[in-house]
Amino acid sequence: MDRLTIVKVGGKVVENPESLNALLDQFCRISGNKILVHGGGRSATEMATKLGIETTMVEGRRITHKEMLDVVTMVYGGLVNKKIVALLQARGCNAIGLTGADLDFIKAHKRPVTEIDYGFVGDVDDVNSNELRLLINENVIPVVAPLTHDGKGNLLNTNADTIASEIAVEFARYFSVYLFYCFEKKGVLKDQKDDNSIIYDLDLPLFQQYQNDGTIKEGMIPKLDNGFRAKKNGVKEVLITNHENLASGRGTRLM
Amino acid sequence: MDRLTIVKVGGKVVENPESLNALLDQFCRISGNKILVHGGGRSATEMATKLGIETTMVEGRRITHKEMLDVVTMVYGGLVNKKIVALLQARGCNAIGLTGADLDFIKAHKRPVTEIDYGFVGDVDDVNSNELRLLINENVIPVVAPLTHDGKGNLLNTNADTIASEIAVEFARYFSVYLFYCFEKKGVLKDQKDDNSIIYDLDLPLFQQYQNDGTIKEGMIPKLDNGFRAKKNGVKEVLITNHENLASGRGTRLM
Repeated sequence: MDRLTIVKVGGKVVENPESLNALLDQFCRISGNKILVHGGGRSATEMATKLGIETTMVEGRRITHKEMLDVVTMVYGGLVNKKIVALLQARGCNAIGLTGADLDFIKAHKRPVTEIDYGFVGDVDDVNSNELRLLINENVIPVVAPLTHDGKGNLLNTNADTIASEIAVEFARYFSVYLFYCFEKKGVLKDQKDDNSIIYDLDLPLFQQYQNDGTIKEGMIPKLDNGFRAKKNGVKEVLITNHENLASGRGTRLM
Repeated sequence: MDRLTIVKVGGKVVENPESLNALLDQFCRISGNKILVHGGGRSATEMATKLGIETTMVEGRRITHKEMLDVVTMVYGGLVNKKIVALLQARGCNAIGLTGADLDFIKAHKRPVTEIDYGFVGDVDDVNSNELRLLINENVIPVVAPLTHDGKGNLLNTNADTIASEIAVEFARYFSVYLFYCFEKKGVLKDQKDDNSIIYDLDLPLFQQYQNDGTIKEGMIPKLDNGFRAKKNGVKEVLITNHENLASGRGTRLM
């Protein structure tokens, strides 16, 4: 099977023009088929603030009422996504920007209301790679914004780590998939104060142990849950790293 | 050659949920291959106002400084485009939203500064339909926002009527293209006060005469210039009408 590299980058890397350009330089150097999945977190919060819309986060997840859905649609699906596409085209990478609504790529359902009403937040039901595989065969590079749709005309805000994992599993049916989660650190750290204390190999029992003793916590837990889910479902390699290590493949490797 | 219908809709139709839904119902009823090109005019002005950004129009064209470029990228490329895509998917139409940067679809150059500096406004150089034709063969429906790119990493604001005309000419090399310009009236009117005074057949000499005597003026002139350019360059039929007449094909036909 052909190799397909899926790179997920977080909002922080994307917001800063310098780190975004450095990331895109590295990304373009990856040979073969590739997909970029981006977040956009704080830029949506900033835009919401400018528009007088209050941002509420619960456990790191954005409460997405109607006005906030418009903001994330504009910022993730428009501003961030199309800027990345234009910058990739300038590097000779034939990119196409997508949400989950485009090509019916990622269908989701509105998260049911429990104690918390997340609003227009989507949990993924189905990934359809049919038309995208045609494009990938033509050396096109999909750039995916963290938005899905419910098939009834509504867009939904969906976590970018989850999207990366879900599409990695779908494409693993047709490609040998390498999934890279890029963030600010060089990998999952044993000691948050020491940037070089990288855990190079991480398997499920060790992940469980590190959760129990508090070494791994907060936002890193759902990220790794997504990574392990991908690894379990046919994805060849899952790496947590920063964009500078994309080429070298150094970082935390899920086993 | 297979038939391809290109429908351009203006901002006013798109902004109002009722007319947008009516338009999309009609659009989905068109059989065969199709493309939707949308404007978004006033929604960008409204968003700019909310963000404290001043809007300046010169002869109906938006001066697009850096902050305004971000606004039109968000509103046209994100909010308007992705909403339309989600609403088409809900109707079983497999849509994909695009700017000119996606798939390197429409390359343009920044309009040279003369007496007026339009800012990040693009004049079209080249339309590339290669990958889009693959998608159209798979019954995919492109939905095109009025944004182009310069190949150097910059998005550019480009008139939607012009985009519709330019892509119609490119696709006319491969398809029998029908280009419909939809706006609020049933066609080009002889008397602005009488909505039924439609000029059904319009050729170039008559267009010239109506310009000279003031029957046709203002924004209708560049729209018709675009239409006649398409007609001259291989597009089979150009019709100016409203969305209710999409199916019947009634309206002003360029000869």
